[in-house]
Amino acid sequence: MLFDDAMLIFAQKNFFVQFDNSKKLGILGGGQLGRMIIQAAIDFDFTIKSLDPDPDAPCKHIAHEFVNGSLKDFDTVMAFGQDCDIITIEIENVSIEALETFEKQGKLVYPQPSVLRLIQDKRIQKQFYKDNNLPTADFILTENQADVKNYVDFLPAVHKLGTGGYDGKGVQVLRSEADLAKAFDQPSVLEKMVDFEKELAVIVARNASGEIKTFPVVEMVFHPEANLVEYLFAPAEISAEIEAQAEQVAIKTAEAFGVVGLLAVEMFLTKDSQILINEVAPRPHNSGHQSIRANDVSQYEQHLRAIFDLPLGSTKAHSKAAMVNLLGEDGHSGEAVYEGMNEVLGVEGVHPFLYGKKITKPFRKMGHITIIDQNFDKLKEKVIFVKEKLKVVTK
Amino acid sequence: MLFDDAMLIFAQKNFFVQFDNSKKLGILGGGQLGRMIIQAAIDFDFTIKSLDPDPDAPCKHIAHEFVNGSLKDFDTVMAFGQDCDIITIEIENVSIEALETFEKQGKLVYPQPSVLRLIQDKRIQKQFYKDNNLPTADFILTENQADVKNYVDFLPAVHKLGTGGYDGKGVQVLRSEADLAKAFDQPSVLEKMVDFEKELAVIVARNASGEIKTFPVVEMVFHPEANLVEYLFAPAEISAEIEAQAEQVAIKTAEAFGVVGLLAVEMFLTKDSQILINEVAPRPHNSGHQSIRANDVSQYEQHLRAIFDLPLGSTKAHSKAAMVNLLGEDGHSGEAVYEGMNEVLGVEGVHPFLYGKKITKPFRKMGHITIIDQNFDKLKEKVIFVKEKLKVVTK
Repeated sequence: MLFDDAMLIFAQKNFFVQFDNSKKLGILGGGQLGRMIIQAAIDFDFTIKSLDPDPDAPCKHIAHEFVNGSLKDFDTVMAFGQDCDIITIEIENVSIEALETFEKQGKLVYPQPSVLRLIQDKRIQKQFYKDNNLPTADFILTENQADVKNYVDFLPAVHKLGTGGYDGKGVQVLRSEADLAKAFDQPSVLEKMVDFEKELAVIVARNASGEIKTFPVVEMVFHPEANLVEYLFAPAEISAEIEAQAEQVAIKTAEAFGVVGLLAVEMFLTKDSQILINEVAPRPHNSGHQSIRANDVSQYEQHLRAIFDLPLGSTKAHSKAAMVNLLGEDGHSGEAVYEGMNEVLGVEGVHPFLYGKKITKPFRKMGHITIIDQNFDKLKEKVIFVKEKLKVVTK
Repeated sequence: MLFDDAMLIFAQKNFFVQFDNSKKLGILGGGQLGRMIIQAAIDFDFTIKSLDPDPDAPCKHIAHEFVNGSLKDFDTVMAFGQDCDIITIEIENVSIEALETFEKQGKLVYPQPSVLRLIQDKRIQKQFYKDNNLPTADFILTENQADVKNYVDFLPAVHKLGTGGYDGKGVQVLRSEADLAKAFDQPSVLEKMVDFEKELAVIVARNASGEIKTFPVVEMVFHPEANLVEYLFAPAEISAEIEAQAEQVAIKTAEAFGVVGLLAVEMFLTKDSQILINEVAPRPHNSGHQSIRANDVSQYEQHLRAIFDLPLGSTKAHSKAAMVNLLGEDGHSGEAVYEGMNEVLGVEGVHPFLYGKKITKPFRKMGHITIIDQNFDKLKEKVIFVKEKLKVVTK
């Protein structure tokens, strides 16, 4: 049978909707995530306009139109988006006021500004999980450093700035009273430290018609110094029960937000087999890069299908996959050289993706490597090989 | 074991060659093949410049630099390529004189102009096969229409213009004396009509260091009226012996030409199980589009690896695949509408690739659809569904 029943019902529902790729898509943010969205958009011949504060942003040369300007400045974003029909983001830290104005004007804005309001401030995000019975670690909202001192009994905990944190910035681990001097003096959230077994992530897509699909659960390993994903495996090595539980949490979370587009749900698997939401991102995510090479549709294509309200694609994986982030080597700042690239390219199933950043800095995300294999042990061998051989250095 | 021995030797050979993506690549031709090369080049952050006579060519918006101009005019091509380090093509009908001049100046030109000289004229191409003991149908070189009349006994045969034919143009079937009036009055080649079982194609890649890899054999089905590939299956439904024979012919052909880059070798499988070369193209080819979705590396990535002298990637297929060309519907000329697209997008493993052409014409190649499945019968069911539902029409 070609279709299963759910698919048939869906196909009938969308029967008379004509495919329309003439709508112009504006993307706030012209970094690597935007770059991979544009790469996927080529297949559909979508017209893309990109905005980024960096005049040499990764999207510069491949967008139909690239605008250099602030993502946070209301007027800049309004001027950028006026001739766009659909607006999306590849970074959360943008002028939500401008997005709200676009929405009022009748433009399609996905993820919706209301979702960004709930997510952009980590305090509101945590409260949202609690209010919606979504599993997450216990937390306390703190207003300033003095306030944190009242909760010594709650330590060890992770202190996160409400707003302004990104990629490991704005996060502090407070183990004991001695660490209190490091606590943020601004509105923050103090999260109970989770004794976790693994860190997992599920990317879920929801289109405007309400169709939902999840990508297989991945297992992330973080870089000890940089607080960034260092590498990941897909699928995660977990039981079928945990897998189903993680997928259900992701779906419930996407439905609670009512998001249109992608939602990347990062989770802790605790030592007593509980799934707790760590945080979410309403956009393509570092934990889904490998889907370009290992799944029927990539997270980038899926994001486009969701926001253009097309049927979502199958997320089935045809291979086991790993993804290694290519971070700028510590101690190197300047024009990037990819040492060892030719050696890793010689290994079957190894694919680079370079972000088009000319200048490397310690721990800067310069690209990633996807590795596929049918065999998990070989996959791990290849990950070790790539991590050992490939370095982003300067001349 | 991570590497096989051949790979290890290759890896050692290339051990001290530093990966260098700063070379600028110029592509002659800005059509769909160039578009897919550019899409693959994003992964490596290669800088691409594109030349095409159509001011709205498919590569226009995604190349770093797009130049509108003639591919056949020596001065235009010389001006275009002067700041490029590597030059390649996505169509053979270009100024070979300009390419030869670039080569003398020390630029890397792949495929080499010498290979284009052998291929561009179908008469020279056929003679090359004969001289190199490569299997091909018997043929006679004809100078004009009157000349053809001497070979009535050789009919049925296919009459092909030596130069200037493309995508079914410049080809005539001469079944009997009555057809002689259709014969070309210019230098042509008269090829014995082959009573074939199937039409096959193998894409082979050869990098500058001499490493060679083939993609799995595909089976092509031609459109009865348009003389274009209508759809294909990969892998071809043939015996292991025929498969090995087809691959060996492709490798021998690439080695005989000494080509750097891709060589698409179209072949006939005769009813008595012989492989005969039909024709070749030294570039990405319509018979390899599905590799984007079904193989470890696509033909486009492989072409880039070959011409930048990087290790070639694995061509292993993870799924069975079909490719359906999306041709403009007969009787429709004007702004294109993709009728039925939403329905086919709802089918698992179905992926569109649109070429960015706004205007459709009867049988114009507007895009293609890749279909993957693990099961061959389901794959065929999906091909039928796509061919029935999806039409390129006008509003």
